Amino acid sequence: MYITQGLKRAVQINSEGIATIDGVRQRTWAEFAERVAKLAGGFKGLGLSKGGRVAILALNGDRYLEYFFAVPWAGGVVVPLNIRLAPPELTYMLNDSGTEILLVDDVLQAMLPAFSGKLTTVKHIVFAGEGATPEGTINYEECLALAEAVPDVERGGNEVAGIFYTGGTTGLANGVMLTHDNIISNALNVLASVDHAGERWRYLHVAPMFHLADCGSNCSLTMMASTHLFIPKFDIEAMLTVIQAHNVAATMLVPTMVNMLADFPGVEAYDLTSLRIIYYGASPMPEAVLARAMVLFPACEFIQGYGMTETSPVITMLEGRYHIFEGPLSGKIASAGQAVPSVEIKIVDEHDHEVSRGTVGEIITRGPHVMKGYWNKTEETARALRGGWMHTGDAGYMDGEGFVYIVDRVKDMIITGGENVYSVEVENVIYQHPAVAMCAVIGIPSSEWGEAIHAVVVCKEGHNETETDIIAHCKKRIAGYKCPRSVEIRREPLPLSGAGKVLKTELRSPFWKREARQVQ
Amino acid sequence: MYITQGLKRAVQINSEGIATIDGVRQRTWAEFAERVAKLAGGFKGLGLSKGGRVAILALNGDRYLEYFFAVPWAGGVVVPLNIRLAPPELTYMLNDSGTEILLVDDVLQAMLPAFSGKLTTVKHIVFAGEGATPEGTINYEECLALAEAVPDVERGGNEVAGIFYTGGTTGLANGVMLTHDNIISNALNVLASVDHAGERWRYLHVAPMFHLADCGSNCSLTMMASTHLFIPKFDIEAMLTVIQAHNVAATMLVPTMVNMLADFPGVEAYDLTSLRIIYYGASPMPEAVLARAMVLFPACEFIQGYGMTETSPVITMLEGRYHIFEGPLSGKIASAGQAVPSVEIKIVDEHDHEVSRGTVGEIITRGPHVMKGYWNKTEETARALRGGWMHTGDAGYMDGEGFVYIVDRVKDMIITGGENVYSVEVENVIYQHPAVAMCAVIGIPSSEWGEAIHAVVVCKEGHNETETDIIAHCKKRIAGYKCPRSVEIRREPLPLSGAGKVLKTELRSPFWKREARQVQ
Repeated sequence: MYITQGLKRAVQINSEGIATIDGVRQRTWAEFAERVAKLAGGFKGLGLSKGGRVAILALNGDRYLEYFFAVPWAGGVVVPLNIRLAPPELTYMLNDSGTEILLVDDVLQAMLPAFSGKLTTVKHIVFAGEGATPEGTINYEECLALAEAVPDVERGGNEVAGIFYTGGTTGLANGVMLTHDNIISNALNVLASVDHAGERWRYLHVAPMFHLADCGSNCSLTMMASTHLFIPKFDIEAMLTVIQAHNVAATMLVPTMVNMLADFPGVEAYDLTSLRIIYYGASPMPEAVLARAMVLFPACEFIQGYGMTETSPVITMLEGRYHIFEGPLSGKIASAGQAVPSVEIKIVDEHDHEVSRGTVGEIITRGPHVMKGYWNKTEETARALRGGWMHTGDAGYMDGEGFVYIVDRVKDMIITGGENVYSVEVENVIYQHPAVAMCAVIGIPSSEWGEAIHAVVVCKEGHNETETDIIAHCKKRIAGYKCPRSVEIRREPLPLSGAGKVLKTELRSPFWKREARQVQ
Repeated sequence: MYITQGLKRAVQINSEGIATIDGVRQRTWAEFAERVAKLAGGFKGLGLSKGGRVAILALNGDRYLEYFFAVPWAGGVVVPLNIRLAPPELTYMLNDSGTEILLVDDVLQAMLPAFSGKLTTVKHIVFAGEGATPEGTINYEECLALAEAVPDVERGGNEVAGIFYTGGTTGLANGVMLTHDNIISNALNVLASVDHAGERWRYLHVAPMFHLADCGSNCSLTMMASTHLFIPKFDIEAMLTVIQAHNVAATMLVPTMVNMLADFPGVEAYDLTSLRIIYYGASPMPEAVLARAMVLFPACEFIQGYGMTETSPVITMLEGRYHIFEGPLSGKIASAGQAVPSVEIKIVDEHDHEVSRGTVGEIITRGPHVMKGYWNKTEETARALRGGWMHTGDAGYMDGEGFVYIVDRVKDMIITGGENVYSVEVENVIYQHPAVAMCAVIGIPSSEWGEAIHAVVVCKEGHNETETDIIAHCKKRIAGYKCPRSVEIRREPLPLSGAGKVLKTELRSPFWKREARQVQ
């Protein structure tokens, strides 16, 4: 299987249908494919080698999607970069991946001076923005206009289609190698799991396209000849405006976005009745947040995907019909759903032995969705894929019907006074407090308990809850040992990763650095 | 990917759900999987080698499904044999495939004496029937009961999962090698194309399980932990009784079965309201037959699959929503639908160049569904897969939206007076005659026209239409050159392949033999 096959299918079945809508710009599948073939010609003209890496540092847009198909069409490998990273981190990724061509847009070109003289392999920089072409870069539209449409190279199967860096915000980034088969098997599994998969959706790219949670949908939507719409980055008003103006039917959001959406003043003023599916995932969704969003969009189906970059990304899905709070199936909403069709899951102990249903262990997974490995990192690859299974680092349990309940990242679990506490469980309780806008629960050093539970809370505007209020709220709802010992009330938002996950490592590190100093 | 993963998924998500219902016998997925693991142990105990072939010659039943999973579980390769073949043909297949173990049931054990002394590789015969165990065979239930459940060998990916013989009724049979990935990719493509794929269906195996049209569904249904029901062989009353008694929701029929069903007296007396999906395929369905069936089952969705053994089998699907006779989409019902998601199709001329939309050519296909090759037949494999595409031998054209219209088998096309006539088109017209139960149109030698169009027609009981009536019926509806020059009215049914296709080669051969004699 190979990624561009899906594009060719879209042209075969819907050549005059709308492929992309980006602001006032709109293109059919026939036009889109022609541009992809020419852009691929442009890349070849720039000397792109077989399997050569082409990176992109850009906000969402139609050119991002063209890039996503033109690179494999030319026989190259995509390297979508996290736009929130700092220049040294990006420099590392560009050099580590051996990127030959780099695409930037209007906003991200501001990074270019910081790269100056530091990129060891980049031969060309292509400016894919709308403004004036910066010196030393090649204009995207010119590159495309001057090129000949080339035939599809049709690399595929087990060959690498993309390198997706993870963990770039802390520690040294790992480049996850996903093959063509990885990405297509993800698309097929998602299509197989979602009802009405054969229909054509007007899908809005809201989450950043560099992130696999969004990027993974590129293939399934294109295979179905659906219509892609874009907003440059997450912005509630822009999102609501486009949904209303273009009758958007589906989108994918991360929980923090759902949270902000549900709290957005004036959301009721928009006509959002076209919206039929909200996919969500990339980090755990507090049930209270989900419940609020479901009230806001009663006609909308919520579908959860759970996974990670290393798994292309979907491991499990929780379908719309399980998003209910009453009746025999009501408990399932607390889960991440069941393994998608061709994916295997086990919950194991520290020796990789499967544990019984209901017992918490690490979630491991095997199948056509599991990455080829980490780029240039044999040891890390062997560790992550030991025994032929991808070790997710997520702690969870499975019920009698194969629904997987994620309790925490293994590394975010807190051991306090000998008891395991899952930070996510405590966060879910704190989110039930009506004044809470955001929160994160972490373990901090404690001479008495080993680790003590600490919460960082951001209140909604006009609310001034205190540490005592939050602790009291928790004490009414969960066992005392699970309640925070301390609460920090912050005014500014919590630090988020590019994928919208709270960066607990950043919250934790001052405490543990202090500890380290004390130990020394 | 590997076949038994789907079974493990079924146990993970629905261990207490009903896996199989065969007469009064009923088993849960947990029980079914336990039996599969023990039967695999039994096969290993009989010395099955790694990748060793295990053939089956049996009517439909729950043991057929157990076999289908136990063989790969033990690391073997399935060889499901066409029960309508003669002993010399089956002997050839058993020896050609190097089968080590052969399973037979009550009915097919009658073949055993004819094999005596002729099987060069079979070491054990397992009797999977209900009656007394024939001498020299091993009882299936004993083999299973005495064995230890063994762990799954987990062969998979590009390794051969099954050898499926085609064309066994005429000429030398070809063993189609399908890999684990072939079969799973078919399952995923079907699931991705059918709405409500995530639901659990009560599916009745009516078409013979040795044929890939039915056998292909084993995987998708099992992955979804659906319930399999069986009738030993096609029998309208048995079928209707089981549908009514067990609330069967889905089944797969070949067109001749749909035809007989629609004509069956008393069909209205059954409560068939549970039936929601009828898959059909394996040969072209005359529109008149389909229309009658749709009237009979107004609440039922008809879904067409087009494909062949070499493509695991599905190439295109025509979804339920295109089964309409009015409105803008009404023309699509004459097609076989569009390529399923990860499958490529082209219509090409005799030099393999793609023809324009609307032009008839040969249908060729590429993708993860295409067989590894023909067993032990390098030349035939190279010819069928030349240029990396499977050449279907079917003539058809594609419309502007990628719908494929199959006009004929390339070899069934008739060239008469320099005009191409598609036998299927003429048959469709003849089927519109209310007296016609079955028909086939073939080309026969003609000194005047090169080939002349000849129809063989079976009338319904109580009807006595003549050659003149049929020709007159056609002349009112199609161009004169497409009308039969001669019609043979037969009393007995037309010869059918195991898959229910009319064997045109058999109908043609007397004419062409005569011709050959005349030429000599």
